[in-house]
Amino acid sequence: MRAHEAGVLHAEALAPGPAWLRPPEDVNALLPKLWPATAHRGEPGVLQVGGVSVTDLAATHGTPVYVIDEQDFRARARAFRDAFERAFADLCGGADVYYAGKAFICVEVARWIAAEGLRLDTCSGGEMLVGLRAGVDPARMGLHGNNKTDAELARALDAGLGRIVVDSAEEVSRIAEAAAARHVRAPVMVRVNVGVEAHTHEFLATAHEDQKFGLSLADGVAAGVVADILRRPELRLTGLHAHIGSQIFDTAAFDVTIRRLVALHAEVGREHGVVLPEMDLGGGFGVAYISSHHPLAPEEIAGRLAEAVRSECRAARVEVPRISIEPGRAIAGPSTFTLYRVGTVKPVRLDGGGVRTYVSVDGGMSDNVRTAMYDADYSCALVSRVSASPPVLARVVGKHCESGDIIVRDEFLPADVGRGDLLAVPVTGAYCRSLSSQYNHTPRPAVVSVRDGRAAVLVRRESEDDLLALDAG
Amino acid sequence: MRAHEAGVLHAEALAPGPAWLRPPEDVNALLPKLWPATAHRGEPGVLQVGGVSVTDLAATHGTPVYVIDEQDFRARARAFRDAFERAFADLCGGADVYYAGKAFICVEVARWIAAEGLRLDTCSGGEMLVGLRAGVDPARMGLHGNNKTDAELARALDAGLGRIVVDSAEEVSRIAEAAAARHVRAPVMVRVNVGVEAHTHEFLATAHEDQKFGLSLADGVAAGVVADILRRPELRLTGLHAHIGSQIFDTAAFDVTIRRLVALHAEVGREHGVVLPEMDLGGGFGVAYISSHHPLAPEEIAGRLAEAVRSECRAARVEVPRISIEPGRAIAGPSTFTLYRVGTVKPVRLDGGGVRTYVSVDGGMSDNVRTAMYDADYSCALVSRVSASPPVLARVVGKHCESGDIIVRDEFLPADVGRGDLLAVPVTGAYCRSLSSQYNHTPRPAVVSVRDGRAAVLVRRESEDDLLALDAG
Repeated sequence: MRAHEAGVLHAEALAPGPAWLRPPEDVNALLPKLWPATAHRGEPGVLQVGGVSVTDLAATHGTPVYVIDEQDFRARARAFRDAFERAFADLCGGADVYYAGKAFICVEVARWIAAEGLRLDTCSGGEMLVGLRAGVDPARMGLHGNNKTDAELARALDAGLGRIVVDSAEEVSRIAEAAAARHVRAPVMVRVNVGVEAHTHEFLATAHEDQKFGLSLADGVAAGVVADILRRPELRLTGLHAHIGSQIFDTAAFDVTIRRLVALHAEVGREHGVVLPEMDLGGGFGVAYISSHHPLAPEEIAGRLAEAVRSECRAARVEVPRISIEPGRAIAGPSTFTLYRVGTVKPVRLDGGGVRTYVSVDGGMSDNVRTAMYDADYSCALVSRVSASPPVLARVVGKHCESGDIIVRDEFLPADVGRGDLLAVPVTGAYCRSLSSQYNHTPRPAVVSVRDGRAAVLVRRESEDDLLALDAG
Repeated sequence: MRAHEAGVLHAEALAPGPAWLRPPEDVNALLPKLWPATAHRGEPGVLQVGGVSVTDLAATHGTPVYVIDEQDFRARARAFRDAFERAFADLCGGADVYYAGKAFICVEVARWIAAEGLRLDTCSGGEMLVGLRAGVDPARMGLHGNNKTDAELARALDAGLGRIVVDSAEEVSRIAEAAAARHVRAPVMVRVNVGVEAHTHEFLATAHEDQKFGLSLADGVAAGVVADILRRPELRLTGLHAHIGSQIFDTAAFDVTIRRLVALHAEVGREHGVVLPEMDLGGGFGVAYISSHHPLAPEEIAGRLAEAVRSECRAARVEVPRISIEPGRAIAGPSTFTLYRVGTVKPVRLDGGGVRTYVSVDGGMSDNVRTAMYDADYSCALVSRVSASPPVLARVVGKHCESGDIIVRDEFLPADVGRGDLLAVPVTGAYCRSLSSQYNHTPRPAVVSVRDGRAAVLVRRESEDDLLALDAG
């Protein structure tokens, strides 16, 4: 059937959805930009990914489960690496891509990252440990953090990390002392608070930004820390660093950032006679969570950033330093979906006459807190079968004892969605497993990778014994 | 010194704070309503709780650490039990208090709850398991959930739980079948969506509430489910249940709730000739997170609820059923503080000329996500010493790689707060450890109880081995 007309009627008759959400032409269609590259409906309409059907995944690994398409993840990593390599080739001999491990990291994923020629950005002792266990070359790893512990600095220096990003004035002497004690010279960058804050389609450029990260450009704090570092023989300053936001769909904010960073970079050259070899532009590149999101492709981002770097360096009469970036979400996010099983379906009549269909699944805010925490939008599809029913406006909620336990606020699902069906929520690869909790003493789901018809457990499902392992009672 | 005037000058000169936050008369003072009962500054100004100093706690158990004052926790539990027992004694022979385990539960805390004469409200298989391991009488436990699994229902029936709260129409037959298979009669309540949503000082009373929990009163769905249950010999309907919100500072919303619940209760009597023996009014009683919060004492809540129940039952000409309530936050919250160690202190100049002092501690959104998730307000104090410095407006942030990683948005701290100092954030006993994550591969803090000069580990600190235990790589 043509669900379009029926869907419109349904939507108007039943419950108001957000402006961006239109009833689908085909409620069974999977919008390619929201799904991993290998995802498609096989016969008889069951979602296949990496050559494995979701019904098999659910049977073998249980639900909920995070399913990561290895080929898709690797392809996104390669796309960033290739695009930045090409765009910056004639400017500074290419650019380095550091995968931001905070989005999602486990030992196997760190291996993929290294195998695809990317580097690894970490921001804790634990993330460093994962990279080191995976055999990532420490020289290709970086360490961030506004409050690094002595133990974290020790691990970074003992392992020989390629860069430690300085985030406060007081940290300089601590790193220098730790380096001196080890008779090494610590490679450091300076994180600059450039006064730019970017998110989605907007950015704010001011002199000062009210946040915990970085050293103020406008107040001269960053320049002072640079001078402090350059005075210390235990430290080797490799360059300046900025990170301006998250889920960014445009590059205008990067233009301002590059202008300000290059100005400080040039000033360091004039004041100290030092040519800093590197510059890091951070991450924050957006992904499509819903149909109305239109992120830039890596080639577009790389091309625009290269053009801005070229023109700003030319205007400042400095050589172009080696550029690096730190994508996390843009690589991990769309490679993964969360597979849930439907439990309860409940139509709830709203004041005003509409009906909202609450579809409860067997996970929730414990495995995806982004909807509750950031008002994030997600989409969702029935994936264990196709349906000829008309679409109804649904809300996908979890099983936790909290009314804010919402996974997908608004989505059209077939009217016959019911107990036992499998639902998949795409683009959950970033900041879902990494922010997961055991709320309501709920064991956390497994992370399973799929490729060429085989599934492999990357992070195993928690058991009730795991849940109680820390309980001394 | 009198810090008051200096503080005002500081506040106006440095950074704008929220309207409710005034510079303290004494920056070292601990506002009693925010701290556990036994907390006080000993010599030389170090916070003592349960007879143990926080410097000793930090030395022995590390930081961050959740510190729970056992005496305070038990006293709050007893206060609710006693107040409701007394207020409802002549109405219905007393009232039952179910501690809402979702706020915070571990085996030892479940033992405290049972020892103080409270019952236990759970909402998952894991929470049930904790109660059962603690030896809580299953007949004094309840199970909630909008999407209970078959395994959870089986556990509840096999253990002999005292009540299962039905949350959807489809659940009725599943419980009945599971009970039939076990040759038991399952005691159930019906969760009613009464159309009341309450939070802090406001409440909204409508016909329909747009949320996942409960069965609609206005549409007759609740009455239909009641009829369905009464038809089934495998089920024993004990009463109606409602839960209307969280962090509620008034009882007006409960008045509306009681009116609506009693109306349905009376209707069930008229239609079916059945006198339901119980009624549960839920929880949601607020606590003071900051100085401007003024929660009601348990006796006030009990008195007002008893009066409302009395008058509504009289008006409806029904006998008063046995009343129960489900406080969680009001018992667990104020019994606990989180102890952090300060790492980095960074003054950040704001556009407009003020300065905000960012104080970074060794925890963050991984151990307290409420600030990021609910815009929750918290307070904070320097607890490893007293200070003669004037107060400055500070923001206490964590060590995570995210600008929203804020623990206390606005608080006055002594201007000399610095690296190595211990800070304590009070009222973190509810929904902090239970919602905690391992974001940035951060091991979760221990929960330590203190009493009579002794500290005991209730939940041990995670290790790096724990962190990587699920990683198959």
